[in-house]
This record gives sequence, C-alpha cells and structure tokens, in this order.
Amino acid sequence: MDSSLEFIRRIQREIFSLNGTVALLDWDQKTYMPTWGARERADQISLISRLIHEKTTCEKLFRHVEKLWGRLEELDNREQVIVKRLRRDVEKARKIPSDFVERLSKTVSIAFTVWEKAKRKNDFNRFVPHLERIIELEKEYSELIDLPGHPYNSLLDDYEEGMSVEKLKKAFSYLRSEIVDILARIRSSDVFRKQYILNGRFDVERQKKICEFLLHKMGISRKVSRLDVSTHPFTTSIGYNDVRITTNYKSSQPLFSFFSTMHEAGHALYELGLPKKEYGYTVVCDAASLGLHESQSRFWENIIARGKHFWKYFYPVFLKTFPWQLKKWDLQTWYLYVNQVRPSCIRIEADELTYPLHIILRFEIELGLIDGKIEARDLPCIWNEKMMDMLGIEPKNDAEGVLQDMHWSTGDFGYFPTYAIGNVYASQLFHQLLKEKPDVGNEIEQGNLQGIVKWLREHVYRYGRMMTAEEIIRRTCGEGLNAKVFVDYLKDKYLALYEV
Amino acid sequence: MDSSLEFIRRIQREIFSLNGTVALLDWDQKTYMPTWGARERADQISLISRLIHEKTTCEKLFRHVEKLWGRLEELDNREQVIVKRLRRDVEKARKIPSDFVERLSKTVSIAFTVWEKAKRKNDFNRFVPHLERIIELEKEYSELIDLPGHPYNSLLDDYEEGMSVEKLKKAFSYLRSEIVDILARIRSSDVFRKQYILNGRFDVERQKKICEFLLHKMGISRKVSRLDVSTHPFTTSIGYNDVRITTNYKSSQPLFSFFSTMHEAGHALYELGLPKKEYGYTVVCDAASLGLHESQSRFWENIIARGKHFWKYFYPVFLKTFPWQLKKWDLQTWYLYVNQVRPSCIRIEADELTYPLHIILRFEIELGLIDGKIEARDLPCIWNEKMMDMLGIEPKNDAEGVLQDMHWSTGDFGYFPTYAIGNVYASQLFHQLLKEKPDVGNEIEQGNLQGIVKWLREHVYRYGRMMTAEEIIRRTCGEGLNAKVFVDYLKDKYLALYEV
Repeated sequence: MDSSLEFIRRIQREIFSLNGTVALLDWDQKTYMPTWGARERADQISLISRLIHEKTTCEKLFRHVEKLWGRLEELDNREQVIVKRLRRDVEKARKIPSDFVERLSKTVSIAFTVWEKAKRKNDFNRFVPHLERIIELEKEYSELIDLPGHPYNSLLDDYEEGMSVEKLKKAFSYLRSEIVDILARIRSSDVFRKQYILNGRFDVERQKKICEFLLHKMGISRKVSRLDVSTHPFTTSIGYNDVRITTNYKSSQPLFSFFSTMHEAGHALYELGLPKKEYGYTVVCDAASLGLHESQSRFWENIIARGKHFWKYFYPVFLKTFPWQLKKWDLQTWYLYVNQVRPSCIRIEADELTYPLHIILRFEIELGLIDGKIEARDLPCIWNEKMMDMLGIEPKNDAEGVLQDMHWSTGDFGYFPTYAIGNVYASQLFHQLLKEKPDVGNEIEQGNLQGIVKWLREHVYRYGRMMTAEEIIRRTCGEGLNAKVFVDYLKDKYLALYEV
Repeated sequence: MDSSLEFIRRIQREIFSLNGTVALLDWDQKTYMPTWGARERADQISLISRLIHEKTTCEKLFRHVEKLWGRLEELDNREQVIVKRLRRDVEKARKIPSDFVERLSKTVSIAFTVWEKAKRKNDFNRFVPHLERIIELEKEYSELIDLPGHPYNSLLDDYEEGMSVEKLKKAFSYLRSEIVDILARIRSSDVFRKQYILNGRFDVERQKKICEFLLHKMGISRKVSRLDVSTHPFTTSIGYNDVRITTNYKSSQPLFSFFSTMHEAGHALYELGLPKKEYGYTVVCDAASLGLHESQSRFWENIIARGKHFWKYFYPVFLKTFPWQLKKWDLQTWYLYVNQVRPSCIRIEADELTYPLHIILRFEIELGLIDGKIEARDLPCIWNEKMMDMLGIEPKNDAEGVLQDMHWSTGDFGYFPTYAIGNVYASQLFHQLLKEKPDVGNEIEQGNLQGIVKWLREHVYRYGRMMTAEEIIRRTCGEGLNAKVFVDYLKDKYLALYEV
C-alpha cells in the first residue's frame, strides 16, 4: 500500500511538471515566440500532451489506484480525497482510446484553420462539413464517457464536474426570461437613450502602470506573477508560484486593458490560492471547475470593478493619469459609462446584463446539435432568430453571428455554459460576502481589496478540488447554483441605474 | 530495415522536441520567470532531461541502431551519416548508468550552491571537499567512457569530439609562450602606458537600438530570433527557426552589450545555418563541437568587431547615437580603446590577446586534477603562480582567482579548452576568408556583413555534424587545428597597434 501511495505521489508530481511545461510552451507562443517558431512549437506541445495522456492512462497507475481504492478506509482523510479524485480522472481518461484522441486532434486542427478562413470570408458553408465532423466526434465522445441523462452531460463534465443539463436548462430558461424582461424595461428608459463615448488617445505605458498598480492592490506580487501582452488576454499556471497573466492595450480604450487585467487577476488569485501546502503536486490542488474559475474573474471584473464603491478609489487614479482626456467626465458619468447596456452581436463585447443571453443562446444550440434536433447547416438561421428573440438585434453577417467564436472549431462543446455559471456563482459569493462583511463597500472605497481576497481564499480557493464547484458554493453560500440571486443582483443594479 | 529507419526518425524528432522544450524552460528561467518559480522549474527541467536520457539510452533504439549499423552499406549516404552519428551518441550515453547521472547531478547541485557562497565569502576551503567529490566523479566518468590516451580525453570528447590532450598540449604550450612573448613586447611599448577610459552614461534604450541594428546588419531576422536581457548573455535554440539571444546593458559600458550581442549573434547564425533541409530533426543537424561554436562567436566579436574596417562603418553609428559622450573621441582612439591590452585577473574581462592565457591556465590545472598530479586543496597557490608566470599579475583574493568561474562547480571539466580552440579556429577561418575574398574589408567598411555570413554558411554552418569540427576546418582551410595562424594574426594586429 505504501508503494502504491509512493507511486501515485510520484506520477502526479511528474504530470504536474509536464502540465506546467505545456503551459509555458503555450504562454511563450502567445507572448514572445518569433513567428517562425510556430511549427516546431506545435510538435513540442503535442509531444508533451501525449506524454501526459500516456502517464494518466498507463496500466500501472490504474492498478495502483484500484488497489488503493479497494482499501480506502485504511487511508487517512487527505489520502482518501486524493485517491477519489485521481481515480475519477484516470477512469475517465482511460475511457478515451488514443486513436480517438488523435482523430479528434487532427479534425479540430484542420477545422480551426477552415473556421478562421470562413470567418474572414464570411462563408459559413465552407465550415459546415468540418463542424459536422466535429459534432459526430463529440457525440462519439459522449458515448465513450457515457454519463447518465442527456448525452451533453458527458461533454459538460469536462468543464463543470457534477453539473447536469437538467439543472442548467432550468436555471438558464429562468435567467433568459428575466434578463429579456429587464432589458425591455431598460430599453424604454430615458437614460438608455443617452450614449457615452470615450474620446482621445490613452498612452499605453500609462495604461500599463495603472494595470500594474491594480495588480499590486489585489495583492499579486511580481515574485509569483507577470503581466505581459498577447492578442487575447489569458491566465496560465506554470507552477504554483508562477501564475502569469496577459492583457492587451488599445490606445483608444483604456478600460479594455484595465478590465481584462482585473478579469485575469481574478483567475490568477484563484490559482495562487489553491491548497498547495496540503495538496500540492496532487490532482486535488487544482480549480474545482471552469465555472467556478470564471466566477472568480467575473466577480472582480463585473461585481467589484463595475461597482460604485470601486470607482470612488480608482476613478481618481484614472483622472490623475489621463487628466486631459477625462476633463469633461465626472464620477457618476464614468460609472454610467462603465455599466452602459448596449445589446451587441459580439459576445466578447457584451455588457454585464446581456452577456448571459449570448451564452444561453449557445447552450441551446449545442444541446440541439448534440441530441440531433438541430442540423449544422441550419445554424445561421437559428442563430439569427435567437439573437432577435433574446437581444432584439440581428448580426449583419455570419462572421458577426454564428462564426464569431472559435470554440466549436476547437471541439470545445460544453465549455460555453461555464461563463454563465460563473456569473451566477459570482453573484452568490458576493451576496454571501455582503452578509458576512457588510462594510466591504467601505474597504473597496479605500482601495483596500485584501479583505475580499482573504475571504475568497477561505471560502473558495483553499478547497481546490476537494469537492465539486457546486459543493463549494453550497458550503459557502448555503445553497447550490441559484440563478435568482444573480437576477436580483442585476435588477438591483440596472433598474436603479436606468431609473426604471 | 524500413521500420528501423522509421523508428530512429521518430525518436530523433521526439528528442529534438524535448531538447527545444528544455531550452525554453531554461531561457525563460533566465529572462522572464518570476523568482519564486525557480523550485518547480528545476523539477520541470530535470524531468524533461531525464526523458531525453531515457529515450537516448532505451534498449529499443539501441537494437534498431545496431541493426542499421550492421547493414550500413545498404543505406544511402545521408542515412549512413545519420546512423553513424546516432550510434556514437547512443553508445556513449549507454556507457553512463542512470545512477551515475543522478549522483553527479546531486553532487553538482550542492557544489554549485557552496561555490556561490565560497566565492561571495572568498573562502576556498569551504569549496574544497565538494570540488574533490566532483573530481572523483569526473575520473569515474572518464573510466566509464574510456577513450584511449589521457583520461582527460574522455571529458574533452563531450565538448570537442575527436580532439585529444596530446594535440591540445602541443598547441597550447606553443600559444602560451608566443602570447607571453607578445605581451612582454607590448608592455614595454609607449602606447601601453596610455590608458583609455570611456566616461559618461549611455542610455540603455539607445544601446538596445544599436544592438538591434547590429542584428539587422548581420541578417538575423526577428521572425526567427529575439534579443532579451539576462544576467549573463547567452544563445539558445528552441527550434530551428527560433534561436534566441540575450545580452545585458551596463549604462557606463555601451560596448558590453554591443560586443556580447555580436558574440551571441555569431552563435545564433551558426544555429540558424545548420543543414535543416537535409538533416532536420536528426542528430546531424547540430553544431559539430563547442570549439567550432565558439569560433563563430569569437570570429564576429574579436576578428570582425575589433577590426579597423568594422569601425569605419559602426563608429559613426555610435557617434550619432551618443554624440555628447563621444565628442572627445575619434576613430583611431576608439580603435585603440576597443583593442586595449590589459592583463586582468578575471577571464571574462580579458582582452583578445591575453584571453587564451586564462584558458591555458585552466587546461593545465584540469589535466593535473584529472591525472592526479594536482590536489584540489593546493589550487589557490598553483593558480596564483601560473597567473604570475603567464600574465604577470596576481589575484588579490581567491574570489578573483581560483573561485571566479562556475564551471568546476557544475562538473564541466573539459569545457574550458573549447574557448581557446574557438580562437584558433576563428583565426584560421578568417585567414581562409581573406584568401578567397580579399576585398572583404571593403564590404565590412560599407556595413555589408552578408558576404561573410554567406561564406560561413557554405564553409561551416551547413556541415552540421556530418564530420568533426577539425574535419570541417581541414576541409575549409586545408589543415586542422593550427595555433600558428592565430599567433600570426595576433602578432600582425597587436605589434602594429602597440608599435613594437
């Protein structure tokens, strides 16, 4: 038994090192790699990924895990948690034969290139056969994993362990009708008619200084992190003490780098707060789900950084940095500006209120594609109808519509819902935080964000994967996924803002 | 046989990917990694290195290589070259049992830390027991490799395949007496009495622009390379189209970044010029030896960039960039300044003339340590005596003497000679270049360095490891290692410069 424990300890540590190595290969590719390095980088990433898969699925590990599983009651509590999680990962990975991994990887590699071109040329039909192939593979994957209930459950499980289609359907249909209703009321308001536009050029070096200052206030030290530039902002963990974030600077939109830095910093704080002392170098020292991860980024980006308290401290920082560009603005207008609701065709440009509608639209379509009620070739029509139903606007072409996201071309079915789950969890955590620390608004106004970080560390980060995301939310907030808390939050904020 | 060829093709490609991955892990550690990432980075590097060793020494590869070796005449010429090289690498790696690799790696890891402290505290005795352990391991390594002749041959072979102690002893003792002689003549000259010192502060951003311009003139594109900052300048290949160099900027010494960039660019051009079309992803597409590699960096740094022609073009660039700081200088003084001979205790600060003496000193000591004629504890005394004999100066303490270099603490016995081999090869290549392109000085004066790069590509780079370094030199210059060519070059240059 000791030798089994020693074996799983060693192999988890190796897999951890390989994961960090892939993370670095990927980070470098998106930040500093000379362009011509791309081809060999693809080889490197695919080789290390294969080694990770081989190590996870190898017979020897399986046997040791099964042995420990059979004598679970002899293990201490910590070891039991590790063995349970590891067993789940190993058994799941072993359901997928390596020839399937290869077929999927080849298909999406081609599909991604075709999608890029299809989007550029605004030509959905070019993408259809590839999308159809991916959908077939996703169905096959679902059959291999074979979770109970809707076939989509098996896809969802990759990103949101323990969540089910049944639960999401209920939460999302409620969310959909409530947000559509709030949106209708806002649209008819006087405030909605006024549009705020930020003019001027905002020096990139100064933007960077504000972002670095923000990270400092959030308690992210340069000893364990970096801020770099990439096309699309992201966060990656190269080690427990090496969690890097990226942003992008747009000289006409200083809030893009600011909000994206804060979003990514939310992810980074979660990674940095994982239970490395107790569970370091095991599968338990990881995020519980993508939804919970996204709740952390959205908590900071939307709830904190689009809240009124926050700007009492940070608007003066902006004003001092860009006095000339902001001379016609005041705190209240700025607050309205950063929370402006404007239905948009593009998901990643959506405001806090309408964002979940973009997700629900995709969720409904993914369900239909997987259970066969929707055909890939009909997507543009269905997409545009749903856009009209939910957001009251229609994309002027497929590039701005059904082709806008890369997720389907990379085979990431089941991923989209986690964004909206993140919104809901974030609002639940905030609701609970306010109960426990009713004066948190004052702290934020002082620029003191450390109390919030501490609270999140104790109530979210430190659990790692000891339980599922929903179990963590239940333990912290007293109940599982509850979209009503999010709807109440949205109503409180946006009906007041738009005076309806 | 086809399956053996396919197997060795695939495994060489995997090893290539793993080598590039280690290179990235190392590059990142020295450039951008947050400091606290160090511990997990060590795990990552050691794991990937172990995978490389396992792949190189695995029984399956060995059997395939032996099979191909037995039917060598049935292979085409290209395949024969690959199998020969690969067989040499595999057989050599298999001579070293993995428990030895582990013992050595643990010993040097501790020894390096002790050396750092011993140097800082100027306390050689603290380092002695660790150095003794390393010497024992180096002797053991030599016995395992077991090449004919002097036991040091087996160490040398890791860096300079085909070179022997016998050959080096002859070349180095000649070099030593000639340089000591030139130095004596220079020391007695009037010119030697005058010392040139560069004053002022040189903006780092401007230094960087000059370095980037230099890389541009050398034909190193940003599509396949980068210039970053690290404590010690270095070059690393992450892929055939991703060769990165680093430098370091000192605001009082603009020539440090300039010469080190040129030095590293010489290495980078070699890597970028390897025969990737013909031999890509095989062991043949690599540098022939460290000595030949070093000949490339020194060719550019010393022979080209410390030559008169070069500054006709580049001095105006410096003058334009730093007009105020250089207002009292002219081209001739500048040329004297960059070639100033000043015996120094520190190897890495040595000038072109005295540098080889530092190497010969270390070579003589390494030989003695390996064949048992020198004891580690006597080193400070021996070191200082040799310094006095060769350079006429004595270090004021061991930190500036025997403790200055890290090489022994990392177990790199046999490495030092390659620096001086590089000097000699560089002079031989230059001698041949002048024969074939007598007007090359004119090109350099125009800032046109592409003719030289082209010549080196054809006469050095493109051979990769198709033959040994000395065979490449013989093919290009008509003879193997010949220290006399280097001595003639030094005499021509320095006796004229010092008017003796």
